[in-house]
Amino acid sequence: MVSTQKKADKTYKVIGTRPVRPDGVDKVTGRAKYGADIQLPGMLFGRVLRSPHAHAIIKKIDTSKALALPGVKSVITHKDLPTAADAALNLGETTDNLKWISDKVLAAEDALFHGQALAAVAAVDKHIAEDALALIDVEYEILEPVLSVHTAMDKKTPSIHDNMKTVDMIARFQVGEISETQINNVASILDLELGDLDAGFKEADIIIEREFETGTYHQGYIESHNGTAQWNENDEVTVWLSTQGAFNARDQLAALLQVPMSKIKVIPMEIGGGFGGKIPMYMEPLAAIMSKQTGKPVKMHMQRDEVLLATGPTSATYIKVKVGAKNDGTIVAADAYLAYEAGAYPGSPVSGGGVSMFMPYAIPNVRALCLDVIVNKTKTAAYRAPGVPAAAFAIESIIDELAEKLEIDPIAIRMHNAAEEGTRRHDGVLAPSMAVKELLEEAQATEHWNAELSDPSIGRGIAIGAWGNGGMESSASASINSDGTINLNTGSVDIGGQRASLAMQLAETLGVEYDSIKPQVVDTDSIGYTAVSAGSRTTFATGIAVIEVGNKIKKQIINRVATFWEIDANALKYNDDGSVSSPDKIINFKEIAAMLPNTGGRIQASIDIQATTHVPTIACHIVDVKVDEETGKVDILRSTALQDVGKAIHPAYVEGQTQGGILQGIGMALYEEYYYDDKGILKNASLLDYRMPTSYDVPFTEIILVEKPNPGHPFGVKGVGEVPIVPPLAAVANAIYDAVGVRPNILPVNPRRLSVLLKEKNNK
Amino acid sequence: MVSTQKKADKTYKVIGTRPVRPDGVDKVTGRAKYGADIQLPGMLFGRVLRSPHAHAIIKKIDTSKALALPGVKSVITHKDLPTAADAALNLGETTDNLKWISDKVLAAEDALFHGQALAAVAAVDKHIAEDALALIDVEYEILEPVLSVHTAMDKKTPSIHDNMKTVDMIARFQVGEISETQINNVASILDLELGDLDAGFKEADIIIEREFETGTYHQGYIESHNGTAQWNENDEVTVWLSTQGAFNARDQLAALLQVPMSKIKVIPMEIGGGFGGKIPMYMEPLAAIMSKQTGKPVKMHMQRDEVLLATGPTSATYIKVKVGAKNDGTIVAADAYLAYEAGAYPGSPVSGGGVSMFMPYAIPNVRALCLDVIVNKTKTAAYRAPGVPAAAFAIESIIDELAEKLEIDPIAIRMHNAAEEGTRRHDGVLAPSMAVKELLEEAQATEHWNAELSDPSIGRGIAIGAWGNGGMESSASASINSDGTINLNTGSVDIGGQRASLAMQLAETLGVEYDSIKPQVVDTDSIGYTAVSAGSRTTFATGIAVIEVGNKIKKQIINRVATFWEIDANALKYNDDGSVSSPDKIINFKEIAAMLPNTGGRIQASIDIQATTHVPTIACHIVDVKVDEETGKVDILRSTALQDVGKAIHPAYVEGQTQGGILQGIGMALYEEYYYDDKGILKNASLLDYRMPTSYDVPFTEIILVEKPNPGHPFGVKGVGEVPIVPPLAAVANAIYDAVGVRPNILPVNPRRLSVLLKEKNNK
Repeated sequence: MVSTQKKADKTYKVIGTRPVRPDGVDKVTGRAKYGADIQLPGMLFGRVLRSPHAHAIIKKIDTSKALALPGVKSVITHKDLPTAADAALNLGETTDNLKWISDKVLAAEDALFHGQALAAVAAVDKHIAEDALALIDVEYEILEPVLSVHTAMDKKTPSIHDNMKTVDMIARFQVGEISETQINNVASILDLELGDLDAGFKEADIIIEREFETGTYHQGYIESHNGTAQWNENDEVTVWLSTQGAFNARDQLAALLQVPMSKIKVIPMEIGGGFGGKIPMYMEPLAAIMSKQTGKPVKMHMQRDEVLLATGPTSATYIKVKVGAKNDGTIVAADAYLAYEAGAYPGSPVSGGGVSMFMPYAIPNVRALCLDVIVNKTKTAAYRAPGVPAAAFAIESIIDELAEKLEIDPIAIRMHNAAEEGTRRHDGVLAPSMAVKELLEEAQATEHWNAELSDPSIGRGIAIGAWGNGGMESSASASINSDGTINLNTGSVDIGGQRASLAMQLAETLGVEYDSIKPQVVDTDSIGYTAVSAGSRTTFATGIAVIEVGNKIKKQIINRVATFWEIDANALKYNDDGSVSSPDKIINFKEIAAMLPNTGGRIQASIDIQATTHVPTIACHIVDVKVDEETGKVDILRSTALQDVGKAIHPAYVEGQTQGGILQGIGMALYEEYYYDDKGILKNASLLDYRMPTSYDVPFTEIILVEKPNPGHPFGVKGVGEVPIVPPLAAVANAIYDAVGVRPNILPVNPRRLSVLLKEKNNK
Repeated sequence: MVSTQKKADKTYKVIGTRPVRPDGVDKVTGRAKYGADIQLPGMLFGRVLRSPHAHAIIKKIDTSKALALPGVKSVITHKDLPTAADAALNLGETTDNLKWISDKVLAAEDALFHGQALAAVAAVDKHIAEDALALIDVEYEILEPVLSVHTAMDKKTPSIHDNMKTVDMIARFQVGEISETQINNVASILDLELGDLDAGFKEADIIIEREFETGTYHQGYIESHNGTAQWNENDEVTVWLSTQGAFNARDQLAALLQVPMSKIKVIPMEIGGGFGGKIPMYMEPLAAIMSKQTGKPVKMHMQRDEVLLATGPTSATYIKVKVGAKNDGTIVAADAYLAYEAGAYPGSPVSGGGVSMFMPYAIPNVRALCLDVIVNKTKTAAYRAPGVPAAAFAIESIIDELAEKLEIDPIAIRMHNAAEEGTRRHDGVLAPSMAVKELLEEAQATEHWNAELSDPSIGRGIAIGAWGNGGMESSASASINSDGTINLNTGSVDIGGQRASLAMQLAETLGVEYDSIKPQVVDTDSIGYTAVSAGSRTTFATGIAVIEVGNKIKKQIINRVATFWEIDANALKYNDDGSVSSPDKIINFKEIAAMLPNTGGRIQASIDIQATTHVPTIACHIVDVKVDEETGKVDILRSTALQDVGKAIHPAYVEGQTQGGILQGIGMALYEEYYYDDKGILKNASLLDYRMPTSYDVPFTEIILVEKPNPGHPFGVKGVGEVPIVPPLAAVANAIYDAVGVRPNILPVNPRRLSVLLKEKNNK
């Protein structure tokens, strides 16, 4: 991989190196334990009956024939959910209310999307469970499905949820109260405004208004969802699963199963990809309930079609953006209307899109109206920088068009409007440290950007994007062994190399070797609360927890050595190499560790922190495409990613994140898409038909890491996992325009769509 | 069970109640996971070749035929141990030197006891492994075995260990230096003296000198030793085993395998009994080495004969005691000589016997000379109050005889000589709080002691004994969930109900319900160092760690509520029910827990403590026996145990410990014994031939718990697990004397031995 790293000023001993990951050997030798590896005595296998209809009233479910099949031990429907009996849950007021979470797990009155779970079976083997599904009789009253945000919001369309109240997010966030309006199938509205939009547009010399659409994209993790539950006779529940957040899973399960949190032990197995999609609960509550009914552990493992039908994906979107600029390129006003498909239950990432799309720029007059729209499709889930790639596609396409029309270099126009520290944003925040200019300067200087294009059918595009990494709660604990090695525990599931990146931060803090630290991901009984490994937060926020644990340990070491030497602690210094010295003595880390057992016991520390400093990271993508005008096929010829990473703890992992994010963004731009028929039936629920890019489609991306340290993290870390997915959609679209003079406004711009655009252009 | 509890003054909400144990359901439903339940992909099975000789030079071991057997994957001998290559280990200077630990695991130059491990095999199934053992050719030069302390110490007997140096424990302990003397096959000498022995005996009106012997007793845990090891390609080793101390096992393995502690993860499975015998390593290092050689996990599980041959037992002992008293019963001098069999390597519990035997009494002039003697028998291990039952048998028999000869009531003579707080002991310690008098007063008042004996063939005996519970290092961590439930983690293996007794102490500390706490025993990677569950230390010492964790949590809660209410923390009070109040406001524990996530994160704490206050516990046993003079058979008719428990956290578990200890003591008195032939071959290595008492032999013991709080523990806890085994040997012997007028001086006093004594009496 060609990779360049622009170093931050400060140098470190461990941070910035590229050691082997602690989980590497287990993963390459097949010893790492995934959920599929769980085998328990007497274990049953569960399967789910899914709705063949996108919208139907469930008039009756008869499970008697299925239950009578030899080998079948349990058949459950919504009425078996502990939440079903609790009418108080049926509030319908917030996006995360328990009624909807419960209905999504097993449908209550209606099936609201193709593939929705209606019943579950546990049997002695998975084939019997499969056979039993066919014996469940469901009587439906089929309704017309609502399949687009436009239809959904049409006054003539019936409400999908009778009692749903639209939540005004501004009121909710700002005043702490919820004001309710009745907008058709809109679950929530977020209306962000800054400055005076009308006045802004009056100042403009040029105004461009465009509409954009993006498709439904799945996260595409290799490992499908799985969960095994064992409900003991004393109502203690153990769940093994593939999740991005064991505590989040535990708390969801506690709510769904109506048991105390302490009675649920969630054991996060290794995870074969998540990208945001392994946060919600799907089958785990069903496995738990069937385990309770049968007294046996129950294992469930989705087939690939179920993953595509009923988990993930991200929202299909409709975005309209109007931008006004002066002739010198100054953007004076921007007005965005974003309507995102939530799927059958509330909760799209539209607000993320509406907030982040303008984050790289300083625009004085801005509005973003964000609508969360219910449709009869699978409930969406978070997907890497949720909601932002689509929104960045919109704004970055328009900026490219502005640059073209105003005859300004595309990097220059972005530089001219770049947000800086102190820029007032439309979400009310004063921007913290921003690296837009630094990144654009590096982009300007790349060999790629300055290379000649060899062929008129080749175009080059550029786009940037922002994502503010998450903070949230993390715990860590560490303990020194008497030989100087250290055990480190966190509750952050390791998706992207967290064991290594966290061990490195502790090693740096304590001044010890990376190899002397043994990091471990533990279950929910074994450490304090830790939020999901998502939002690019883990290396940042759990990193802060780990550093704080290191600092607590250092303090104890100083005090212990002071007692041992009978000297005032203030006279001691903890050195960079882990030794402690007084003006006339020194003791190294191994010697300190060896003396601990006989001087009061070994030293350990634990902490629970809430990270609050959110510094956006900025990514830039430069891409060369070759378009075959005859077929509409687009080939990616060259790809360069620049990314502001604060400080790269383990540069190889950061590069891996960037490489993957770029690839997924290109997938959204060119290849991937859910195909629904007019009845709302998903027609391509397989990886043969749902077309993800592979290494055959896309060349390796050249990666340039730019280090502008995050002032909110002791080592300057910024979250890096998500932002690389943001710019490629627009970069590819802009490159296509550069190549063939048409601006794709609907993604993915597959050969069919591009052919239409090329035909329109040629017919003009 | 008939049980009475004499309550300590202070009353508690949780402590002193008898809730269901958290591990109870899993254990009675068979779901609790023991080492035998471990199944891993590709797992091999290991077996050990054991010496058929008690003493032999190993001239050659040829493993080639065994290795050639299809299915055999590894055959190892001592030269495969990582320690074998390290000559520096061959120091022979301390009882725990690595050379001896290593040789015990796999014999080096000689086989020193019948059953010693010589080689190990790993194969694809255990039958093949068994077959392979027969194919290992060993060439021996058989030597004369040394089978008693008397033979061993005889100058004419050759040294079993050529280079062994006798360690003078007094010098070692008091001066910090080791003085070496050469005493034949004596590994160490501890010589404790107080006052002026000659002057003391001169004051005496009566002097009694007697010799005593006790046999070799096995701990008799139901679950045999087992261990499974997986050595990964990155040299990380995971070991699942049945142990009393996961960290102790880890550190022994780190030394034996020569890998850093952090690279070994010891996962303690549930344990089916230990009684001190599950502390040393036996097969686990072999499993690890064979796993390294084969790249597969290796499981080993002893058969019962191996358990009896090569694990445990406690020392057979020879004790000579001389006691002088005045006519009023005042004991003025006591001189004890104790020679305990260490087995083939140093380390008997003779010093425990020599220290504890006089602990209940205030005797001004005392000596105890303690010898640790090497013989060609299996290396002994700790067994419940190690070394003390035999020593108490000696002193309590003599005191019974003194009482008889001086015509003083046996309780009165003990009361007259009872040690109190401040009594100077022969080990140099000033006695802390002692409950001898309180216990004797309760004994005096029992219905049992005052009941008439219905038959002249029935006798009644009484004896007391002391055991000072251990302190040592313990860690604990706890975390509050947002619903107010709490996860509690400790590294103390749960043998006797620790999960419950520790959760109860945290509940009491925090003022919350017992049910709201979920206790868990975790592995060595997941918590700070915690010493073995042994020495009656866990409820005491890990209890202190748990209470300290609770106190740290309370402090954080006070500070958080203070911040939340914007009030000075000093104005707040943490109440007994877990609520926090200011002069005009109150918030309960559940409300506090619920607000934590949004006010800085959930609260957790962890700690590593070293408990240092050792307060002896006192036990008393009253027993009625009926002796069949024709056969020498002794039946236990009635049994009452009184025990000083400080404060019983969970009285039902304390009663269980007492019941079990009494039963084991009776087993030592009457039934159990290793039978060696004159070649040192153990002839009764099966539970058919090694005769442990069952519920058919012995009635339930009536239990009276006396609570004299331990000033060194916040709730007054004393360690209770071991002391009940101390008095029964003497109590039974004294009861036999009361019944038939002969004093057994060799235990077990089985029908054969008692018949001899009765015949001698009748022949007089």
